[in-house]
Amino acid sequence: MINAVKRDIPDYLLKNGKEVYQGKNHMDGKFVRKASVRNRMCVKSQESKIVPSLKEAFVQCGAHDGMTFSFHTELRNGDYVGAMAARTLVEELGLKDLTVAATSLGQAQDVIADYIEEGKIVGVQTSGVRGRIGEVISEGKLATPAVIRSHGGRPRAVEAGEVHIDVAVLAAASSDCCGNASGVGGKNNFGSMGFGSHDSHYADYTIIVTDTLVPFPNLPSSVSAIDVDAVVVVENIGDANLISTKEARMTDNPRELMMAEHAASVIAATPYFKDGFSFQTGVGGPSLAVNRFLEEHMREKGITMSFALGGTSKSVCDLMDKGLVRHILDTQDFDEGAIRHIFSKPGHHEISLSEYANAGNKGAYVNKLDYVVLSALEIDTDFNVNVITGSDGVLRGAPGGHPDTAAGSKCCIIVTPLTRGRMATVCEKVVTVTTPGDCVDVLVTDYGIAVNPLRPDLAKCLDDAGIAHVGINALKEKAYSLVGRPDDLKWEDKVVAIVESRDGTLLDVVRKIKPVTV
Amino acid sequence: MINAVKRDIPDYLLKNGKEVYQGKNHMDGKFVRKASVRNRMCVKSQESKIVPSLKEAFVQCGAHDGMTFSFHTELRNGDYVGAMAARTLVEELGLKDLTVAATSLGQAQDVIADYIEEGKIVGVQTSGVRGRIGEVISEGKLATPAVIRSHGGRPRAVEAGEVHIDVAVLAAASSDCCGNASGVGGKNNFGSMGFGSHDSHYADYTIIVTDTLVPFPNLPSSVSAIDVDAVVVVENIGDANLISTKEARMTDNPRELMMAEHAASVIAATPYFKDGFSFQTGVGGPSLAVNRFLEEHMREKGITMSFALGGTSKSVCDLMDKGLVRHILDTQDFDEGAIRHIFSKPGHHEISLSEYANAGNKGAYVNKLDYVVLSALEIDTDFNVNVITGSDGVLRGAPGGHPDTAAGSKCCIIVTPLTRGRMATVCEKVVTVTTPGDCVDVLVTDYGIAVNPLRPDLAKCLDDAGIAHVGINALKEKAYSLVGRPDDLKWEDKVVAIVESRDGTLLDVVRKIKPVTV
Repeated sequence: MINAVKRDIPDYLLKNGKEVYQGKNHMDGKFVRKASVRNRMCVKSQESKIVPSLKEAFVQCGAHDGMTFSFHTELRNGDYVGAMAARTLVEELGLKDLTVAATSLGQAQDVIADYIEEGKIVGVQTSGVRGRIGEVISEGKLATPAVIRSHGGRPRAVEAGEVHIDVAVLAAASSDCCGNASGVGGKNNFGSMGFGSHDSHYADYTIIVTDTLVPFPNLPSSVSAIDVDAVVVVENIGDANLISTKEARMTDNPRELMMAEHAASVIAATPYFKDGFSFQTGVGGPSLAVNRFLEEHMREKGITMSFALGGTSKSVCDLMDKGLVRHILDTQDFDEGAIRHIFSKPGHHEISLSEYANAGNKGAYVNKLDYVVLSALEIDTDFNVNVITGSDGVLRGAPGGHPDTAAGSKCCIIVTPLTRGRMATVCEKVVTVTTPGDCVDVLVTDYGIAVNPLRPDLAKCLDDAGIAHVGINALKEKAYSLVGRPDDLKWEDKVVAIVESRDGTLLDVVRKIKPVTV
Repeated sequence: MINAVKRDIPDYLLKNGKEVYQGKNHMDGKFVRKASVRNRMCVKSQESKIVPSLKEAFVQCGAHDGMTFSFHTELRNGDYVGAMAARTLVEELGLKDLTVAATSLGQAQDVIADYIEEGKIVGVQTSGVRGRIGEVISEGKLATPAVIRSHGGRPRAVEAGEVHIDVAVLAAASSDCCGNASGVGGKNNFGSMGFGSHDSHYADYTIIVTDTLVPFPNLPSSVSAIDVDAVVVVENIGDANLISTKEARMTDNPRELMMAEHAASVIAATPYFKDGFSFQTGVGGPSLAVNRFLEEHMREKGITMSFALGGTSKSVCDLMDKGLVRHILDTQDFDEGAIRHIFSKPGHHEISLSEYANAGNKGAYVNKLDYVVLSALEIDTDFNVNVITGSDGVLRGAPGGHPDTAAGSKCCIIVTPLTRGRMATVCEKVVTVTTPGDCVDVLVTDYGIAVNPLRPDLAKCLDDAGIAHVGINALKEKAYSLVGRPDDLKWEDKVVAIVESRDGTLLDVVRKIKPVTV
């Protein structure tokens, strides 16, 4: 069935009430029933939940063939716990037919690619898929289609019972003997535990893995002991030095800085830019750099931001320390500066993925967002954005909060160079739709700005401010004139991944790439 | 069927899997399935949830005949919101067959007694029942038996779906337009909102009622906007000056002070009294006074408390400020000193009723408690305690956290004068069992100390420390010798209230008192 972003969703995927994407507000106001959670009563007094090894903790939590385990990836490329969990289940316990439900997947969990190839791991539910895992899924080696969800889509699916987590294995920078766990207070601090905390409410069993055991009670905590079955102490939960990655660093590329400056000008030209506005940037270089230029506009106008939302970098913390941001609502920390800032400044708060972006609750923070500045791998002339598949069709990206913030915000700005290497970023039809065009308002490139025709109000704002903009077709043509029109990718029929919209409807599928025949 | 505390539970109450009380650890390790919560998806951006009146908020939340509404009583005798909710439903909306699910009930909600008499309110689920509500229930005027639960029993029952809350109406000292709500930051601050926060996770609808609207986002919050449907701003949510009541004040009664001193000596004589011990006192005068004497023992031994638990008074806060208590885990605040202290001192934390005492989760704080000092209306020679019915058999008390802390703690000490007025406090058989004798370890009276024969280890500790103690029968006989043996109360068959154990089993029933015929 063809959906609202013109993608053909195979009918066999439309079972158990699954619908195709029908526009960004289609599900608003619908009633959903949350999953019924199973719990083991703890009536007796209890000294400690520490278990000597992760293997024993899994056994105690009834680990079995066919189960789903989850982990969070706040330690990003420095995470050890995701791989540790997979290795323990497959190597030490000899389990098979496992499904991974992770907040993201990347090179830190490359071992999972092996287990997919060996047929031990047969299901993947994630936001991001990078590194070898993306390659093996794209090669059709995963037994069932991977399900790609946004950060808000994940808690929605968990609450809806569409993802049933048997055992959540949550890395914690510190924990007490009963599982009051935090992202700080240890030797590998990662800050906000907003990615992991929600799992603890819905998993049958929750295991805390920490490298820093602290006296009871470890408060304030991000995961409460009332949701924890076992605590495992390991040598290292990861390498916190690897949290800050290339894409999370501030750019000094002049072209990226220019685009950031333009994005800030667009923001300053729109009516939501007033005292108490709210704002989010993605993690990409040009997106992050917008903070820098926004500061000038804020000072000029004498206004402050009520809240900055989402993944947090030092640059936003600096804005708070300068008195320009009243609250930071933080789901994950991109660098050491942000990790040191959260919990030490009164206005810098941890929020869960559900509070951040879940369309299934009674009002996530994205619903109150004025501006979001995001990057894209591709954007097409319908303003559909792709952040999951490369130009070769291989899974190597992460929707993260992209679709949620784009949908919830009053003004979503995509910042991207017109071309990358020999590939057109602005194109006729993105390989995969991860954020629907009806959620995207403005495109800023190094060759010009385009406004979504759905937003004539914003186009007028730009006109009034003397900011030039063109039709997105013109940008696409310019891109094609520079790097040529790409050949269509060759796909096989097999669906290797499903891209689920934040509201649970089906947005797109990723098929197996046809091997190149030389 | 006769249960483990020798009470006859009518068979007709043993339906839907309900069991009689079978000892304090009978349900440990059993699996329970939590209620499936219904939720309305909020996909669109949303400016505000403010509704002009409570009536309109109820209409928006589908208020209907036969529904259950809940409220919390952190404002204690100063609460306006419980009565406001009842009045709006009955008077303004003309609804009937309503059930009240409250954390407690007292004179602040006296209007509910009228609605019980008028047959508009037909069900009551509560911890405490004081004032006129207790009288009309005892007179048999409530259409169905009231269900009395402990503070931990309430979230257990809500999670188990035994109490389905249609609409929770939660007083908040401050809230933003989306329902991020707190017990501080307004004009009627009550401190911890631990009584109310849990309802917001399980009610079909949650309405925040506040008298102080603050800018978005109101963080840190005790209730998150993701669980809130509507916000109503009223002139006053209550009178915070009435929070501190007689029973929550420090005593200067010499007899009470002597008992407190003895209780502290008992604590100091037992092995759990070491650095990092944990402690809770009830709100009664002699219980609270134990703090004063405990300080001396702590200083003498050079130890500090890891955490003080439960309802919090200024005297515990003072101990923290003196460096003797590392953490306060706070479910409600009994006075202005505690209200000012929470959220302003890093170690003073708000916890929910579920974290505090719910035997249905994976480990509440009571399970880690060393000592609790509690009061009693009556205690019998099996160490069963009654804190719900007066000597006339009328409902006028509150189990609160009494049964939870008694069960979870390693050493539960009951402090009570041997007689009150012309009534024996230590007696042969309490009118109603609210805390089973197998949870009670030591009794301290003004005429001597008794140790539960189930705890020979504690008896030996007292012997070693030279603390005299006697059999509880001797104390009962002494009491009877002073005030005479009471006549048995005369009951009718009709059950007016069910006392549920913290684990969901049935502990006792309260029957209708036979009218006195002159």
